[in-house]
Amino acid sequence: MKRSLGRKTLILPTPTWIVGTYDAEGRANLMAAAWGGVCCSKPPAVHVSLREATYSYESIVARGAFSVNVPRSSQTAIADYLGIASGRDVDKLAVVGLTETKGEHVDAPLVDQFPLNLECSLIHTLRIGLHTLFVGEILDVKAEESILNEKERPSIEKLNPPVFSTSEAAYYEIGERIGPAFEMGKTFIEGA
Amino acid sequence: MKRSLGRKTLILPTPTWIVGTYDAEGRANLMAAAWGGVCCSKPPAVHVSLREATYSYESIVARGAFSVNVPRSSQTAIADYLGIASGRDVDKLAVVGLTETKGEHVDAPLVDQFPLNLECSLIHTLRIGLHTLFVGEILDVKAEESILNEKERPSIEKLNPPVFSTSEAAYYEIGERIGPAFEMGKTFIEGA
Repeated sequence: MKRSLGRKTLILPTPTWIVGTYDAEGRANLMAAAWGGVCCSKPPAVHVSLREATYSYESIVARGAFSVNVPRSSQTAIADYLGIASGRDVDKLAVVGLTETKGEHVDAPLVDQFPLNLECSLIHTLRIGLHTLFVGEILDVKAEESILNEKERPSIEKLNPPVFSTSEAAYYEIGERIGPAFEMGKTFIEGA
Repeated sequence: MKRSLGRKTLILPTPTWIVGTYDAEGRANLMAAAWGGVCCSKPPAVHVSLREATYSYESIVARGAFSVNVPRSSQTAIADYLGIASGRDVDKLAVVGLTETKGEHVDAPLVDQFPLNLECSLIHTLRIGLHTLFVGEILDVKAEESILNEKERPSIEKLNPPVFSTSEAAYYEIGERIGPAFEMGKTFIEGA
């Protein structure tokens, strides 16, 4: 027997991604976003959804670009701060001791201390309601050597990015490996 | 020093969500989707991105509705199968022994055996490229009692949904709790 919980965004898991932008004065700003996800393979694209009231919103619209930066679980307190304070009031990077490098392909800052950075060029803007969905084409992915696996891809085990739970209002680590994708399910296919 | 990995969807973490639809004959179909995320709080909305070639694609367009179902980590092999086979060729629910109940608010099937179900009404369709982004307004969330926490919300600890890693092509469990959101970051705020 299931219980009806109503019209709520109660779905799991959601990421802890840090959106990077430059404001009108060229000052870097960062905000934490759990409302986001990959949305296309060709072109490679990712979405983040922001409230219009955020300081980052106007920067994305003005520059037509943003970065998505993924912290390590050990950097979760920093990520959480980036979701509490507003870049309108304070230089968040200075407060937490982060530095940034301008993207190679887009007009947005990449966080030096976060091991995974995506350079995103704004290709679609969709106003839904309180949040506006920004689709960014991924023009490059930059990763620290230390998080790459044998296929030269960012390893979820090595990166261990914090997972955000709306329900618990808490962050979680990545746990044990369950099994291989596109393989486990073959047990249900005869002859496979 | 970071390495440039190119134009790829190499970002983590991504979910393992099961999209439910009814086809033209009213037959239930399910597919696994890692390209998705929450995209608005008011109205509550979630997005999933599908290739036009999928059998589910035409059903979402025709019915204007879909469900998002979240499995437990113990159901990952089933979820993986739902991402391998096509509903065009086989009755996937019958193969893995799942049953469904029609949504209360939308024309889409809710998976009985998966502990978390969202009823979504299609409100936006955005063609990006290979994938099309479908935004569904969440008209209800249904959850098994066994996964609810003390706030009557679906607990990420009790649900333990599989996390998908594109890089590893593998699924992972939810790990240890790191700390409380909107609290951990206050260490950087004077007087907080």
